[in-house]
Amino acid sequence: MEAEAQPSVDKLGLKRDESLGLAPHCPAVGFSGTVVAESGASLEVVLVCNGKCKEFGVDNVGTVPAALTAFAAINAVKPDLVINAGTCGGFKAVGGAIGDVYVSTSVANHDRRIQLPGFTEYGVGKYGCHPAPAVKSAVGGKDGVVSTGNSLDWNEDDMRLMKANGATCKEMEAAAIGWACSLSGTPFFCLKAVTDIVDGDRPTHEEFLENLGRAAQALQGAIVAAVGAIAGRPLSAI
Amino acid sequence: MEAEAQPSVDKLGLKRDESLGLAPHCPAVGFSGTVVAESGASLEVVLVCNGKCKEFGVDNVGTVPAALTAFAAINAVKPDLVINAGTCGGFKAVGGAIGDVYVSTSVANHDRRIQLPGFTEYGVGKYGCHPAPAVKSAVGGKDGVVSTGNSLDWNEDDMRLMKANGATCKEMEAAAIGWACSLSGTPFFCLKAVTDIVDGDRPTHEEFLENLGRAAQALQGAIVAAVGAIAGRPLSAI
Repeated sequence: MEAEAQPSVDKLGLKRDESLGLAPHCPAVGFSGTVVAESGASLEVVLVCNGKCKEFGVDNVGTVPAALTAFAAINAVKPDLVINAGTCGGFKAVGGAIGDVYVSTSVANHDRRIQLPGFTEYGVGKYGCHPAPAVKSAVGGKDGVVSTGNSLDWNEDDMRLMKANGATCKEMEAAAIGWACSLSGTPFFCLKAVTDIVDGDRPTHEEFLENLGRAAQALQGAIVAAVGAIAGRPLSAI
Repeated sequence: MEAEAQPSVDKLGLKRDESLGLAPHCPAVGFSGTVVAESGASLEVVLVCNGKCKEFGVDNVGTVPAALTAFAAINAVKPDLVINAGTCGGFKAVGGAIGDVYVSTSVANHDRRIQLPGFTEYGVGKYGCHPAPAVKSAVGGKDGVVSTGNSLDWNEDDMRLMKANGATCKEMEAAAIGWACSLSGTPFFCLKAVTDIVDGDRPTHEEFLENLGRAAQALQGAIVAAVGAIAGRPLSAI
């Protein structure tokens, strides 16, 4: 969502970039720039949002636009690394608190139940992420499994599958972006800041709206720290 | 799924086409050919499947690959019309029976519950389809609303939203393909053949596997009849 991205666009000094070469009709919106880290090393950063839905006028959220944006951006930019940065729900049962930042070790789906031989595992679609211990250290983050579904709330099926996934983060895009990255073998991990507590007492949509600004700030700090940890390093040392 | 598409590929005499110009890393598989209808009119047909998942070895099913395939194929082929042809669950409560063929009037999602202002309608994502009364007549089909989710089964949330959508067909791709088509304004409808009864007594996966061959045959007949109804006609008269 643009509300999640704007603080990072501003902080990194990125500019709207209409020359990325995204495929025709792709609704994604790109920003780019060269970021110089505190170490003096620089990094070319392209930040891509899913854009807005023409029909309903809101940000394109969920797995379908996320996969499309990642796919189009990868083909246009040919990045060395994709980071899915965004907000998520945390789980108090595993120590999650509002404002926490997670660095993903893997991503999986919790709303694709396909009881056909061979398809069950495809539906879960668990993918390992590129290891990023230096990033985790720089952002002061925790290791986490990011579990993806197309709903902001959850029901019993979702919770059963989130638990099976070992979820520390619940959100709506990561597994689809992981799948899109896997098509081209592009290294990938997530930075996720907690806006709400999934297994808490309050409705997700209330907590989400209340804490979106705070989590977006935490995310912005994490992205800047991650850029600092990545600039000048080979992928094997991030 | 390739098992759904193969009878139609064979019947229409289409050939594997690796020169469609799909975007790099797109896993979709294309077939193409010029089909001459009984009327003598001809139609250029490109049939695209989602391909197989490299990681899990099964057909790519669900909304994410479907949207990606439609998006890549539209950009490559620039079609006048997209038809999402496939199998679905029917509802006995609204007269659905195994082997029935539906022509969609609209598509919507039943697994995207987003309780944020403005996003609820986006989540449902109901899109009207291109009217196709001549196709409906030619295939002996029924009007229907195709409701999409990423699971083969359903739970109470899914059923509540399928009812709210006025669903006659439950499947796993159509609304995502409709969204992808909407990005470029490409006219779109679905042809769906019933493999199983959603509100019946038997588990979906049992009925689905048992009836997939029969429904694929019904679908093949419907696709051939649809091609016959479309060839030589303007889009306003299909």
